Amino acid sequence: MTPELSIVKIGGNVIENPGELHQFLELFSALKTPKVLVHGGGKKATEVGQKLGFTSKIVAGRRITDPDSLDVALMVYAGLVNKKIVGSLQAMNCNALGLSGADANLIQAYKRPITNIDFGLVGDIEVVNAKALNNFLDMGTVPVFCAITHDQKGQMLNTNADTIASELAIALSTKFKVTLYYCFEKQGVLYDKDDDKSVIPNIDWPLYQELISKNVISDGMLPKMENSFRALKSKVKRVCIGNTKMLQSAPGLYTTLTL
Amino acid sequence: MTPELSIVKIGGNVIENPGELHQFLELFSALKTPKVLVHGGGKKATEVGQKLGFTSKIVAGRRITDPDSLDVALMVYAGLVNKKIVGSLQAMNCNALGLSGADANLIQAYKRPITNIDFGLVGDIEVVNAKALNNFLDMGTVPVFCAITHDQKGQMLNTNADTIASELAIALSTKFKVTLYYCFEKQGVLYDKDDDKSVIPNIDWPLYQELISKNVISDGMLPKMENSFRALKSKVKRVCIGNTKMLQSAPGLYTTLTL
Repeated sequence: MTPELSIVKIGGNVIENPGELHQFLELFSALKTPKVLVHGGGKKATEVGQKLGFTSKIVAGRRITDPDSLDVALMVYAGLVNKKIVGSLQAMNCNALGLSGADANLIQAYKRPITNIDFGLVGDIEVVNAKALNNFLDMGTVPVFCAITHDQKGQMLNTNADTIASELAIALSTKFKVTLYYCFEKQGVLYDKDDDKSVIPNIDWPLYQELISKNVISDGMLPKMENSFRALKSKVKRVCIGNTKMLQSAPGLYTTLTL
Repeated sequence: MTPELSIVKIGGNVIENPGELHQFLELFSALKTPKVLVHGGGKKATEVGQKLGFTSKIVAGRRITDPDSLDVALMVYAGLVNKKIVGSLQAMNCNALGLSGADANLIQAYKRPITNIDFGLVGDIEVVNAKALNNFLDMGTVPVFCAITHDQKGQMLNTNADTIASELAIALSTKFKVTLYYCFEKQGVLYDKDDDKSVIPNIDWPLYQELISKNVISDGMLPKMENSFRALKSKVKRVCIGNTKMLQSAPGLYTTLTL
């Protein structure tokens, strides 16, 4: 029987609140399947960057990763945040292993090609080293990824954490039945964005198309949904979207995506 | 036949000079044995700490690791420095894996007991997880350690990099013939500290005792030598002390310690 595996992605809203992070890590460490954690960014890097005297570069409303911003991302995400999460999980008897995409060449990426905008040191994923990742899982460790990859030519690259989570999910689906959990601040995908109780319990591909056409899903939610359906079309078993409590909630209280 | 393994420790003098670091990493990646890198601190953390508005606490001439200093160590050593080294080694086809002692519970430590001074969040090593470390080596990865350990209760701890290197060397000596290289700014242990050419090629235990009594070895060199002889008495095959070039130099141009 194909074993189950859980991949959980958390963002800045969880990372920045020590109490919430601790609660989440307890839920995560209690998951009985093999598991992988991916953590995104947050405001801490902006704060540290400002104190270090770096100015954020915004072009056409999009943040650009210049070498200084990348150094700050390495400090805050690969260093401070990643190791504090690893230390906390170890205290919960969860054998965490902190990783970037450069470690063991786990996630190779290429610098995003310049079109209208040069995003700077931002990586689009080329390949996940599933063999190394499976070795770490076979050892009984729990990989904890920050959202940094590399180009295998010595350049580290800032990378979207949602995309890292879905690419890891796809790579592990050859060996596992993977459930991918996207944690964010809401209880799930909402019919009415102003009504937190209007969670859509299940979204399949036809309903997704309908929700887009009705403009129920738009803006920030779109890339997350695109990542999710790309994962589902590449053998990931299911994708769940909701707040961190979904790790212990009954299905229906958050959104489950299937094909 | 017992396989050989090399453990190399570098300090701030190498890390802070990008050209020298690159040259060192080329020598390191060319080593043909399985290998482990341990990198120490440097001035970068002090600089970052100052910019972030943290004041270094010095008591009786000794630096104290308060929570702010530990955060800076996590940012600079576990993050920025560690991941840049990993990225550079990957570009040299050396399959580096960046680690702290918390990752995979590799190095468990306890907070140094308070005697005359409370050093703060400083760890003394309790146990190295040789099994996990051997698993990483069996996978063909090259562990790259920053000088951070943990107490397995959720607290990360600043730890002496020389001691981490010698404890890793001891733990790996059950399976490997280990050579431990301590890189520092001089060509070796010197008869006359003002004469860079006065390298002592070989030091055994009786000569070490003699050099101490003659005050040839004193101050900053003493803890390094103590770590070295402790390692040799615990089955480490040899310890070499010199600058980074010793990785490709003939014995005699640096100092080799044996029992």
